[in-house]
Amino acid sequence: MDKLTDAPNFHITTGPLPASVKVYQPGHLYPELRVPHREIATHPSANEPPLPVYDTSGPYTDPEAEIDINRGLPRWRKALIEARGDVEAYDGRAVQAADNGGISSVPAFPLSHRPLRARGDAAVTQFEYARRGIVTPEMEYVAIRENEARKELAQKDQNLRDGEDFGASIPDFVTPEFVREEIACGRAIIPCNINHPELEPMIIGRNFLVKVNANIGNSAVTSSVAEEVDKMVWAIRWGADTVMDLSTGRNIHNIRDWIIRNSPVPIGTVPIYQALEKVNGRAEDLTWEIYRDTLIEQAEQGVDYFTIHAGVRLSYIPLTANRITGIVSRGGSIMAKWCLAHHEENFLYTHFEEICDIMRAYDISFSLGDGLRPGSTADANDAAQFAELETLGELTKIAWEKGVQVMVEGPGHVAMHKIKANMDKQLKSCGEAPFYTLGPLTTDIAPGYDHITSGIGAAMIGWYGCAMLCYVTPKEHLGLPDRNDVKTGVITYRIAAHAADLAKGHPGAARRDDALSRARFEFRWEDQFNLSLDPETAAQFHDQTLPKEAHKTAHFCSMCGPKFCSMKISQEVRQAAQQGMTEMAERFRSEGGEIYHPAP
Amino acid sequence: MDKLTDAPNFHITTGPLPASVKVYQPGHLYPELRVPHREIATHPSANEPPLPVYDTSGPYTDPEAEIDINRGLPRWRKALIEARGDVEAYDGRAVQAADNGGISSVPAFPLSHRPLRARGDAAVTQFEYARRGIVTPEMEYVAIRENEARKELAQKDQNLRDGEDFGASIPDFVTPEFVREEIACGRAIIPCNINHPELEPMIIGRNFLVKVNANIGNSAVTSSVAEEVDKMVWAIRWGADTVMDLSTGRNIHNIRDWIIRNSPVPIGTVPIYQALEKVNGRAEDLTWEIYRDTLIEQAEQGVDYFTIHAGVRLSYIPLTANRITGIVSRGGSIMAKWCLAHHEENFLYTHFEEICDIMRAYDISFSLGDGLRPGSTADANDAAQFAELETLGELTKIAWEKGVQVMVEGPGHVAMHKIKANMDKQLKSCGEAPFYTLGPLTTDIAPGYDHITSGIGAAMIGWYGCAMLCYVTPKEHLGLPDRNDVKTGVITYRIAAHAADLAKGHPGAARRDDALSRARFEFRWEDQFNLSLDPETAAQFHDQTLPKEAHKTAHFCSMCGPKFCSMKISQEVRQAAQQGMTEMAERFRSEGGEIYHPAP
Repeated sequence: MDKLTDAPNFHITTGPLPASVKVYQPGHLYPELRVPHREIATHPSANEPPLPVYDTSGPYTDPEAEIDINRGLPRWRKALIEARGDVEAYDGRAVQAADNGGISSVPAFPLSHRPLRARGDAAVTQFEYARRGIVTPEMEYVAIRENEARKELAQKDQNLRDGEDFGASIPDFVTPEFVREEIACGRAIIPCNINHPELEPMIIGRNFLVKVNANIGNSAVTSSVAEEVDKMVWAIRWGADTVMDLSTGRNIHNIRDWIIRNSPVPIGTVPIYQALEKVNGRAEDLTWEIYRDTLIEQAEQGVDYFTIHAGVRLSYIPLTANRITGIVSRGGSIMAKWCLAHHEENFLYTHFEEICDIMRAYDISFSLGDGLRPGSTADANDAAQFAELETLGELTKIAWEKGVQVMVEGPGHVAMHKIKANMDKQLKSCGEAPFYTLGPLTTDIAPGYDHITSGIGAAMIGWYGCAMLCYVTPKEHLGLPDRNDVKTGVITYRIAAHAADLAKGHPGAARRDDALSRARFEFRWEDQFNLSLDPETAAQFHDQTLPKEAHKTAHFCSMCGPKFCSMKISQEVRQAAQQGMTEMAERFRSEGGEIYHPAP
Repeated sequence: MDKLTDAPNFHITTGPLPASVKVYQPGHLYPELRVPHREIATHPSANEPPLPVYDTSGPYTDPEAEIDINRGLPRWRKALIEARGDVEAYDGRAVQAADNGGISSVPAFPLSHRPLRARGDAAVTQFEYARRGIVTPEMEYVAIRENEARKELAQKDQNLRDGEDFGASIPDFVTPEFVREEIACGRAIIPCNINHPELEPMIIGRNFLVKVNANIGNSAVTSSVAEEVDKMVWAIRWGADTVMDLSTGRNIHNIRDWIIRNSPVPIGTVPIYQALEKVNGRAEDLTWEIYRDTLIEQAEQGVDYFTIHAGVRLSYIPLTANRITGIVSRGGSIMAKWCLAHHEENFLYTHFEEICDIMRAYDISFSLGDGLRPGSTADANDAAQFAELETLGELTKIAWEKGVQVMVEGPGHVAMHKIKANMDKQLKSCGEAPFYTLGPLTTDIAPGYDHITSGIGAAMIGWYGCAMLCYVTPKEHLGLPDRNDVKTGVITYRIAAHAADLAKGHPGAARRDDALSRARFEFRWEDQFNLSLDPETAAQFHDQTLPKEAHKTAHFCSMCGPKFCSMKISQEVRQAAQQGMTEMAERFRSEGGEIYHPAP
């Protein structure tokens, strides 16, 4: 098998979502940009323009796009990157047997591309450009992408700003210059490795829409490459803004190649996983050289952000000894084991500046790993966790000095009353670098439902200021998520992110809620489904009890039946009340009645 | 068919949950009480006592109990009620054809019991007894039930109190006297109709554990009585504290009888639904007399709380005219229609004192309905909603004067930043009477996932002080929930309620989290499943990828595979670190090293 599409179980889902078309907007500064949105059409009776929504799905939902998994997505950003004149192509590191764990049962990606890197010691990062005052195509791209119909809205009605933003500075309208400023001060990042030219740029920061990450990846026990590529395409179809490939075991170099070449969203990894494979799983055998080589390998492939557990300092490890669940981060526990085995400081900490030098040469963003995050609510906000957070703050500043983009990872398992302290402390310790949290899970007692235990915490921390939410699927703690789990996780986290955008008062965030609510009130069932996050499930649930087509326009549903529908009664009431407020009020006033006087 | 068990599709789920036994505690004041808890056993290697958890499931999970749906549950509370000497049995109202919508296709419950009512104009309510200083058996019952192992815990470690309770007054240990005080001041209720002697009393109040209600009920379109009884037993198995029978259409008198006679939890209804059936669905034909007769009918059957939309005042209706979704409460829209049709004040408002007189004679609690709750986030916290809430506050005080127990219903659809205002305003307007909310849903864009959109809001408002959370199932807005939806709704809301208890700092709430986390860390897979809210789903998800029995004791799962397990590595780290803190610290100190110094 040379081609992934030859795999017997190969399958990806393409084509538009119901009633949706993909539209592209050009840039003003960079007219060659084609920034995607999805427009959802409603029934002509509604007399409403199509609703534009943010679209993470890439070319897969564009019927005009030619999808060839064996060739990868168009490398449209390459010309823009090269036009900056600060990169050079080079031969790159030769793939070694160890990169795939000795033997590979997964074919190599059919095409190879010469990697790019910075010329000399230049920092070819969005952060560096932003600091120099340059508005890049990537910055204009995300500015257009964040706005949808906001410009119009901002002009139309300032009163629509309704929310509590806890000190965020969300503009009425996102300009390319605003993007540049936010990146320059470290408050936002655009993860975009110069070797991932297939990317559709997106921005992560507290003053932008809240983003969602989906984790995929095989493990030594289960899963194949075809499934992982399918999961990536599936995850972005439902709204994942970035995808982390957390594969371990064999074949991971090749799996990553297939994923990156076909991914329009940023891909993150945890390089220590592959480094550990290269030393046969013995943490104590890890070396800086092996790790460094792995960074280069993945940098050349085009990974957009690296989770690096440089904050797990030797002195913090004893602080975890009395925890109920010790160290639950995989990367954190690997580094802790290495530190203890050698009685030495974490080599990711001691080599941090050298890591920065690699990352600035490719524009890879840091995702500073929280290796000591709590794995149970009992361990939340403890000395180990917050000691590490302080260190992540120090490292953030070093990375910034080196011109590297940074976000910071957060917990984990945290009961509701301890969530806000995490956000506040992160903002303070890390100079407002974007926070990227896993959940947090607000209770430990519901394995099988941890998308929900964590969705609660995710919505709250998103509201408080968290920039990106790492999804948790129903399989968390129990097994590797399958396709259905990926979808459930993504939709749950889109709910959390959107609830946060609403509560923060993101201009225009309520447009979709309002459009769907109008459809609901007017019994436009198909519109209600199409405007929802998951039209398929909504329609299927409705059809379980009222399958007939006629019921799609019925002025009732199976919850109450025709006679009882409050929406129907309410429409009659509205009509009567509106008459009431005009004619009837008039009539009653003339008759001396005071029935329609305003409520106290 | 005379017996429900003869129905072809009849099925209920009985038997204990995995590794669980039902234990009963006697009272001190009332030694004849048998207050149930469930104890979950863990593996002997854990060396931990069984974990007691609150148990809503009634006799159905007790293998010793004889279940006969055709006879109903034991009427154990009858003797206690009669012993108070303030009630009399009487013949009761004759069942009329109209009670079942003209023709009944559902058999009548095989046994009939003469109803009880107060002698003379006595108030036979827990509120009245509490005000008079009487600690009833029901009060001692709930005191024991709320505590589980809290007494021990309260003595053992005061430091376990960790939370933010927003002004609640949660005691270290719930005494019968504390229960009496909370009821006497209106801050808590025990819904317990004297004609529902099968009841296992439970308490609803801000200073007690957060409770969950599950809605069941057929509609004119779908569902049968066998399914509804099954749903009730199924809902309480997974943790519903009360059940509302929201049936409409035909047969509702008989369906209600089957449900109440077999229910160990309080049953709530919305009497206007049945009243409307009696006038063939024409809201304008409703009269006080028909409504009053319906209250008596349901009072004699044993309904424990009535949702009554007495706050939908005529003058508030025009306030809803410019809403996106008007009036979405079924009861609210019926009353609004009646008011507008007659240009008269809501008859539930004008006859409120007479309603109180009926309810005090049976000890039925008010659930003051929020007929003007928002049906979309756009309509949240508006003039209509808050005008009604003020009126519910007035009515609360009238009911209290009449000696009737009261809780107050709340929204609905509310974005996160507007939730706390609801709780604060309710506490203030309604004199701290318990709040009972539907969700709230924090966004409108996810039909099919509204258990999640609302679970987020439910957890938050529970934390802020809401006493009971009315579940929302995945079918909300789309159809009638089936058995699976009921379970998903209940588990989601148990998560929300427990997350709230943890955040409020309920003493002992963290015990289950901690026990499960220890099991997780020690790879006691079966214990992890058994301690969870849904052991079946947890085990099933685990077995999907690692089905072999051996894997149940494996020190890894399919997420990472054997080499990568952070829990495993962390256990090694803990061992090393613990040595580190004693021997190694010593050794390093003696060698002049400073590696194990405490974190800054």
